[in-house]
Amino acid sequence: MTGPITSTLNPEQQKIAGDALQGTLVDMIDLSLIAKQAHWNVVGPQFRSLHLALDEIVTAARTYTDEVAERLTAIGVSPDGRATTVAQDSGTKGFGAGWTKDEQVVASITDNLSAVIGRLRERIAATDEADPVTQDLLIAQTAGLEQTHWMWQAQLA
Amino acid sequence: MTGPITSTLNPEQQKIAGDALQGTLVDMIDLSLIAKQAHWNVVGPQFRSLHLALDEIVTAARTYTDEVAERLTAIGVSPDGRATTVAQDSGTKGFGAGWTKDEQVVASITDNLSAVIGRLRERIAATDEADPVTQDLLIAQTAGLEQTHWMWQAQLA
Amino acid sequence: MTGPITSTLNPEQQKIAGDALQGTLVDMIDLSLIAKQAHWNVVGPQFRSLHLALDEIVTAARTYTDEVAERLTAIGVSPDGRATTVAQDSGTKGFGAGWTKDEQVVASITDNLSAVIGRLRERIAATDEADPVTQDLLIAQTAGLEQTHWMWQAQLA
Amino acid sequence: MTGPITSTLNPEQQKIAGDALQGTLVDMIDLSLIAKQAHWNVVGPQFRSLHLALDEIVTAARTYTDEVAERLTAIGVSPDGRATTVAQDSGTKGFGAGWTKDEQVVASITDNLSAVIGRLRERIAATDEADPVTQDLLIAQTAGLEQTHWMWQAQLA
Amino acid sequence: MTGPITSTLNPEQQKIAGDALQGTLVDMIDLSLIAKQAHWNVVGPQFRSLHLALDEIVTAARTYTDEVAERLTAIGVSPDGRATTVAQDSGTKGFGAGWTKDEQVVASITDNLSAVIGRLRERIAATDEADPVTQDLLIAQTAGLEQTHWMWQAQLA
Amino acid sequence: MTGPITSTLNPEQQKIAGDALQGTLVDMIDLSLIAKQAHWNVVGPQFRSLHLALDEIVTAARTYTDEVAERLTAIGVSPDGRATTVAQDSGTKGFGAGWTKDEQVVASITDNLSAVIGRLRERIAATDEADPVTQDLLIAQTAGLEQTHWMWQAQLA
Amino acid sequence: MTGPITSTLNPEQQKIAGDALQGTLVDMIDLSLIAKQAHWNVVGPQFRSLHLALDEIVTAARTYTDEVAERLTAIGVSPDGRATTVAQDSGTKGFGAGWTKDEQVVASITDNLSAVIGRLRERIAATDEADPVTQDLLIAQTAGLEQTHWMWQAQLA
Amino acid sequence: MTGPITSTLNPEQQKIAGDALQGTLVDMIDLSLIAKQAHWNVVGPQFRSLHLALDEIVTAARTYTDEVAERLTAIGVSPDGRATTVAQDSGTKGFGAGWTKDEQVVASITDNLSAVIGRLRERIAATDEADPVTQDLLIAQTAGLEQTHWMWQAQLA
Amino acid sequence: MTGPITSTLNPEQQKIAGDALQGTLVDMIDLSLIAKQAHWNVVGPQFRSLHLALDEIVTAARTYTDEVAERLTAIGVSPDGRATTVAQDSGTKGFGAGWTKDEQVVASITDNLSAVIGRLRERIAATDEADPVTQDLLIAQTAGLEQTHWMWQAQLA
Amino acid sequence: MTGPITSTLNPEQQKIAGDALQGTLVDMIDLSLIAKQAHWNVVGPQFRSLHLALDEIVTAARTYTDEVAERLTAIGVSPDGRATTVAQDSGTKGFGAGWTKDEQVVASITDNLSAVIGRLRERIAATDEADPVTQDLLIAQTAGLEQTHWMWQAQLA
Amino acid sequence: MTGPITSTLNPEQQKIAGDALQGTLVDMIDLSLIAKQAHWNVVGPQFRSLHLALDEIVTAARTYTDEVAERLTAIGVSPDGRATTVAQDSGTKGFGAGWTKDEQVVASITDNLSAVIGRLRERIAATDEADPVTQDLLIAQTAGLEQTHWMWQAQLA
Amino acid sequence: MTGPITSTLNPEQQKIAGDALQGTLVDMIDLSLIAKQAHWNVVGPQFRSLHLALDEIVTAARTYTDEVAERLTAIGVSPDGRATTVAQDSGTKGFGAGWTKDEQVVASITDNLSAVIGRLRERIAATDEADPVTQDLLIAQTAGLEQTHWMWQAQLA
Repeated sequence: MTGPITSTLNPEQQKIAGDALQGTLVDMIDLSLIAKQAHWNVVGPQFRSLHLALDEIVTAARTYTDEVAERLTAIGVSPDGRATTVAQDSGTKGFGAGWTKDEQVVASITDNLSAVIGRLRERIAATDEADPVTQDLLIAQTAGLEQTHWMWQAQLA
Repeated sequence: MTGPITSTLNPEQQKIAGDALQGTLVDMIDLSLIAKQAHWNVVGPQFRSLHLALDEIVTAARTYTDEVAERLTAIGVSPDGRATTVAQDSGTKGFGAGWTKDEQVVASITDNLSAVIGRLRERIAATDEADPVTQDLLIAQTAGLEQTHWMWQAQLA
Repeated sequence: MTGPITSTLNPEQQKIAGDALQGTLVDMIDLSLIAKQAHWNVVGPQFRSLHLALDEIVTAARTYTDEVAERLTAIGVSPDGRATTVAQDSGTKGFGAGWTKDEQVVASITDNLSAVIGRLRERIAATDEADPVTQDLLIAQTAGLEQTHWMWQAQLA
Repeated sequence: MTGPITSTLNPEQQKIAGDALQGTLVDMIDLSLIAKQAHWNVVGPQFRSLHLALDEIVTAARTYTDEVAERLTAIGVSPDGRATTVAQDSGTKGFGAGWTKDEQVVASITDNLSAVIGRLRERIAATDEADPVTQDLLIAQTAGLEQTHWMWQAQLA
Repeated sequence: MTGPITSTLNPEQQKIAGDALQGTLVDMIDLSLIAKQAHWNVVGPQFRSLHLALDEIVTAARTYTDEVAERLTAIGVSPDGRATTVAQDSGTKGFGAGWTKDEQVVASITDNLSAVIGRLRERIAATDEADPVTQDLLIAQTAGLEQTHWMWQAQLA
Repeated sequence: MTGPITSTLNPEQQKIAGDALQGTLVDMIDLSLIAKQAHWNVVGPQFRSLHLALDEIVTAARTYTDEVAERLTAIGVSPDGRATTVAQDSGTKGFGAGWTKDEQVVASITDNLSAVIGRLRERIAATDEADPVTQDLLIAQTAGLEQTHWMWQAQLA
Repeated sequence: MTGPITSTLNPEQQKIAGDALQGTLVDMIDLSLIAKQAHWNVVGPQFRSLHLALDEIVTAARTYTDEVAERLTAIGVSPDGRATTVAQDSGTKGFGAGWTKDEQVVASITDNLSAVIGRLRERIAATDEADPVTQDLLIAQTAGLEQTHWMWQAQLA
Repeated sequence: MTGPITSTLNPEQQKIAGDALQGTLVDMIDLSLIAKQAHWNVVGPQFRSLHLALDEIVTAARTYTDEVAERLTAIGVSPDGRATTVAQDSGTKGFGAGWTKDEQVVASITDNLSAVIGRLRERIAATDEADPVTQDLLIAQTAGLEQTHWMWQAQLA
Repeated sequence: MTGPITSTLNPEQQKIAGDALQGTLVDMIDLSLIAKQAHWNVVGPQFRSLHLALDEIVTAARTYTDEVAERLTAIGVSPDGRATTVAQDSGTKGFGAGWTKDEQVVASITDNLSAVIGRLRERIAATDEADPVTQDLLIAQTAGLEQTHWMWQAQLA
Repeated sequence: MTGPITSTLNPEQQKIAGDALQGTLVDMIDLSLIAKQAHWNVVGPQFRSLHLALDEIVTAARTYTDEVAERLTAIGVSPDGRATTVAQDSGTKGFGAGWTKDEQVVASITDNLSAVIGRLRERIAATDEADPVTQDLLIAQTAGLEQTHWMWQAQLA
Repeated sequence: MTGPITSTLNPEQQKIAGDALQGTLVDMIDLSLIAKQAHWNVVGPQFRSLHLALDEIVTAARTYTDEVAERLTAIGVSPDGRATTVAQDSGTKGFGAGWTKDEQVVASITDNLSAVIGRLRERIAATDEADPVTQDLLIAQTAGLEQTHWMWQAQLA
Repeated sequence: MTGPITSTLNPEQQKIAGDALQGTLVDMIDLSLIAKQAHWNVVGPQFRSLHLALDEIVTAARTYTDEVAERLTAIGVSPDGRATTVAQDSGTKGFGAGWTKDEQVVASITDNLSAVIGRLRERIAATDEADPVTQDLLIAQTAGLEQTHWMWQAQLA
């Protein structure tokens, strides 16, 4: 994994942090595509409210994507965010085809957020020793997604 | 293709315009992912200049993506912009893995822009009869990409 | 129809484009008044969401009104947007008196948008030969209203 | 007049304030349409100056319209601002058809402002006992229109 | 009540205006705390819409709080907006503990707005002779809350 | 007092409101010049704090000046705000020559504010019958100056 | 403590983090009310400087309040920020009644900041194991308050 | 005409679109210089109004200049906007030397706008087959200039 | 002239620069009052255009006033900008009482600008040796007023 | 050279300052056209960087153009900035036709900047006696161009 | 180390955190001076790109400087950022005198960033026990500099 | 002193202007560091006011630093603003170590401003013949610092 970009991390630290970040990169790109898909296909009385809320997830997921990709480069690991990589490696729950009723959208998005948060929590634990700078970034993104998760779950009550 | 959203287009017009727009949707999402991939992986003396220019393509491609998806909905066709769909149907040239030298990036991006423009030109001709509103949108996106294509090609001179 | 403002269009072209634009002017003013009326009179659980969405139609309709009126002047035809003219010539479906339940508001606005779009589609065809500049304006407004129509229709699903 | 929206005013107070506000609503909508009509149809050396000044009246009249309509709702009375209602009930002086010379525009707008101000002054007196909150709103709008009236009258000197 | 800040009001006028303002100060602080409490604890399909609308009440109530507190100082009376004072003297209806369903939130907020408006109407009458400057402030805040009251009541229809 | 600008006020009402406004005009111009004079000549440890606070008085006094002058024109009375008129008719306490210690500045400004407020209170009473629109403006300016007066007096405690 | 909002924390972690956050919520609301109280009641030569500085504490405390309340919801615990709860549970030092001299204000605010910081330091230790996301938030708020504490303490030197 | 920049247009299409765009480029640069010349040399009672209106033409003409130049590059044709080229090839009516009376300025600018619009109308027809993207740009610029032409012609009435 | 503020200028330099600046201070304050007086009292067809242009002079004159006053303080001379000083020492041409026709306003303002510019030119010469920093400020203000003078004189042509 | 605009300069001063300013006007217009020409025609790896830097020269040259033209009017001399005048009188080095390699662009722009700076330096000397206000303007523009000249020359090292 | 500012840290914790922060303060000030020096002295084809990128380092380093200095004060330690202290204690690699070729600038800045990052990594470890608030700040600054380090190193590939 | 950057100044002019500018560069960097040092270390009742005022000096000194450095490059002289150069060559009075009482800070900053102004006055005289462009820059910076000097000295009265 020696390349044009070097890091103060040793190879093992770089491997642990790199795997955590690359996994997050793929999840976040997929989350942004899923939220856009829902943004276009939602139908039902809650249309307008969900249409707007979904775009806020897109914006957040794109910001998180850039943050993890540029953290990968900062530790000397080439990020891979291409469509085929996302299609193969994503850990989300996916999203069904075609027009989708509003309550189904709420349930599906809540499930996807849970799945991504669960994987982030594991990576926070995994990177504790290897790189506190990477861990700090994952904590911040977890905080953001958990707040979003509350807002979507609240609509199911 | 009857669903919750109706349109003033007849089924044939809807089919022609819908195919042109769905094809463009997939190309534009893939273009945005390719430009981001290059944005992170470019190395070499032109790094900073290309790093910035690539993000302008991302921004444009995301805007075009939203425009064609919401035009699809306006004519009553459900858009499909999920990762697996993009991975299967995209008409771009793709982008190689790992760190990439600046001149290779310029050549690859120029090729991808040419490929997408070529497909847009065909769709402008195809939609002329079926839906002038859809055609007008494709003309505007072609104008934008052709200007971008000049700027990237100019760097190869 | 000779007056203080001249045009490069010949009398026949001026007549065709002028009729299309004057008809659109009246429709757009009435659409803005209807959307305001609904903005004030809607009641029911969807109140807040519709209250906001209706004002977006008002803003759009006012912009379209100005565009067609100033295109009329540009081709040498005096625009007529007075209250009595609107009351007599409008091609909308109108809006009932008094407090109105949210689902009725959605249905009524969707109908009004359909009616205005249908008339715009006819005028796009009518002005194709007479004045491509006028036609281009009508295409752009149709694109905007068709996107809005989707958003309102989606709430009925 | 019992409906879904209640108020702390008693029926008589509600009637007095409601009539004053509904009358003002119709006047203000008509004033905004008249000023737009003049904005498009004015010709003569003062064209540019009047064209801009007329749009300031439009903006003010639209703001006043919203204020009185939402005050009507606040006291439990459904506002009626539809085109036919405006065409029937407005207390303005109206505006002639076709292109209009600049000095005629100044005279006509000054007359319309006088008419609307005169009716507002009566309503300030009428609502003094019934509802000081409504009266306060009418005082503020009168202040605004009287300042505008000075500016238009000054051009006649 | 002689202190470091003097006023042109005589002691009786100062007492009447001071009592009206101190009572309003406490109501407004409590209203802002209640709206925040609801902002966090609302659940149900209307979550997003109410979550946003409640923060607008918070913003308004905080602005009104500052206005009445600084009017108190302007007439030479020390304002008291401490937590214990609010807990004891508030005239609101309060808000229940724990997660709260959306329709309950709408009903509770509407009730609280009614209670505060009722008390403001009494104070407008009380301050008419004593201090027109204070009365003018209370009229403006009543106008604002009555408009908000309509928007919440409209959701119950 | 017949001139190019007319008003709905009768001559007596116009005289009362005109005198109240012309007197306020002169006071406000003088207040703005006094605050500027102090802004430049203050010395002492409180320099910076007073230098900034004085410019806020200048800004407020200039706004009030414009409001009363344009209310004069709105009721058909020509405003007179020339230097010689201000020098002769102002009802302020004035300001001494040369560099001035900070505590003297606080005392002098507080006195000037008291003087101007006292005269405004008389004019609020005087215009109650003649013109509620003018009275409303004087109430608003009194509210503003009384708040400022508190802030300056608070520094003397 | 099972309710409509779930969390990835186990019950013990949820209890520890929930208690830390609820305690902070109450402290921050009270701190914002205390700073506002001081903002209105401070007198003396330092009036202007403290009046402004106190509002910066209000703004910060309100931001911290929202952050901890929304973190509570994110971990599935209902926040309680009602006036009576604040009056009973707050860990601040409180603030005396009536007009208060500037140096007393500085001393009182410095004491209140010390008290709140001390409690935050304990909660940082308490949440280290239970929830690093919550701990990270408490660290950030401590950093902010410690910087503010320096600025107020510096005025006592 | 083979150079470093390529295009999807065939040589004939490139020639037709390139000639239309190069001719427009020269006209627009000259129009911007003429409007600036008038902006500086206008005298008479309408000075201020025309001085401002002329700068709006400058701004528009500069925008159009950039649009056509960058469309030329996008189709692989080198733009030529040098002073000598403009002096030789411009199709405007020019502008006289020295201070110029306001009514002469209005007449001269109206004539220049007519000349440029006439040439644009021919190029819209010429490019219809060759390149719809170029045609779309010329239609948009014609729409803009025809609206401006009305505003200047209206001043002659 | 020894006071709390010192300067690197010797007494003679301080006297020359101080006199030039104090004279300019008085002229600029009077110019701002004259322009405001005209702003309120102008009548005639040019009303709107002059009303706006006069406020630009007010803004400029106020900026110049602050610049020369703060330059006076910077060289250790107390500025005197009180109403009585302005009434006695100003070198402007003044402005007549009452409503004023537009062409008279143009002539009067042009005369006042000439008078102030003439005095500034003398002061530029006078301060050349004494203080280049002061001279530089007077040159900049002269440049500004001469540009304004052209614009007003151009309206007389 | 007597015309509608007068000046405090005597004829000889006016002639010297007028010649210096008219010469600069022509140079600056030509510099703006040259920089735009290069902006469109540059090719090579430095494309993006130069494309942006050239537009900064355009912006600066246009600002300088307006400054010298309006200084000409302020001293009573009619400015001449028409295309034919620029083509004949410009003192720049010009710019070649067609696509141009990046290093040639850098060399050519550096040469043009040198030429314009050299002429400005002569005019600073020439206007020293005649008009310090004009000289001050030329000094400021020279400072700006010399800073730009450094940045372009630095790229040649 | 007892002084006017106190802290909740014990003396040992204060010593450890204080040393880490004071060392960072000096490094960051020097880094900002080095980046400015390079910003002015870089020459070569990459001039413009590096000139801009260096100013981004200056901005970041100044922000980090303020953060660490104000954290020092927050823990009761007086910061020392004077020129002589920086000259003696800085841990950077320095920067050579005179004009510097672009590739040398890239290498030198990359080296300086590496040096500062290495020292920050040590301080993150050192402050882990002593003060998590200080550690959190150093982690955030390390994240920022490591991202910058990648961008500069990428240019060397 | 021949290098990659040339100038129109002859060697002697370049030497005089270069020395004046390099001396100013060092003074301004040191002034910015001193003001920051005081910004962090000031204690006492005036803390807040001085803390803010000192940052305004930092901002000004940084702007002046950039202006003189880029003027040095514009005349072909390499600027030297490194920490060791500043530590050796600065002409300021310096600033003591540790926490500093507010009145001492005022005295020390006033002294430093005097010292820097005195040196600037000498350089204005020195550059009069050599380079009026450089002299103009030094005059502007002197004007700025003399105004600041007044504000600090005023606090000592």
